[in-house]
Amino acid sequence: MASIFSRIIAGEIPAHKVLENDSFFAFLDIMPLAPGHTLVVPKKEVDYLFDLEEDLLAGILPFSRRIAAALEQVFTCERIGVSVIGLEVPHAHVHLIPLRNMDDINFSRPKMKVSPEELADMAQKIRSALD
Amino acid sequence: MASIFSRIIAGEIPAHKVLENDSFFAFLDIMPLAPGHTLVVPKKEVDYLFDLEEDLLAGILPFSRRIAAALEQVFTCERIGVSVIGLEVPHAHVHLIPLRNMDDINFSRPKMKVSPEELADMAQKIRSALD
Repeated sequence: MASIFSRIIAGEIPAHKVLENDSFFAFLDIMPLAPGHTLVVPKKEVDYLFDLEEDLLAGILPFSRRIAAALEQVFTCERIGVSVIGLEVPHAHVHLIPLRNMDDINFSRPKMKVSPEELADMAQKIRSALD
Repeated sequence: MASIFSRIIAGEIPAHKVLENDSFFAFLDIMPLAPGHTLVVPKKEVDYLFDLEEDLLAGILPFSRRIAAALEQVFTCERIGVSVIGLEVPHAHVHLIPLRNMDDINFSRPKMKVSPEELADMAQKIRSALD
């Protein structure tokens, strides 16, 4: 069965899209650790990051860079943190998280509750800030 | 002043080296979150990951992949997690962490205490497991 991320990429499940190209798709995490928390996924469904083919593994951070620059413009933060864990959804994904402090990238703490309207507003602001 | 990582790369400060090439240097974190916790740093001293030049940003995960495969052989884990935070040492670095559970990549919890002898032994095992 297709992963939830493949179903988002296919448009079967709605998401707050930030950016896509031929290889990657980026959208807001609906249970963010910090405002602007974005997921970057390869369109090709591969469970484990380090099983990605070479060009996708090499391309995921350069693709993420453009989003990180936009997140830094929109959200108050020191910089954008990166995390790949992969113990839950079996489709490789990079977390991009605007960091104000170390605890903003602590996946063991409770997630934020953000309404769909707030997420839509954030995604719009991020898309507008993309160069 | 050179960062502590630049001083490690220059051999001025000892470290438990795992792997290096022309662009990157990898060594064990001396305050690991989990056994085998490795740091991958670009030899060029750049503070923020997303300020790396394109070929280094594209190369850091493919370089890390080889280490991740070795870590999976040596340490009991589900997979290798990746994190880039960068609020402390001003020299970009990727954390590679053998994950047994989500809390193994929680930087807010206390670090492990590991002796230099244990670290040297781990580094030797990882080097031996590199393909």
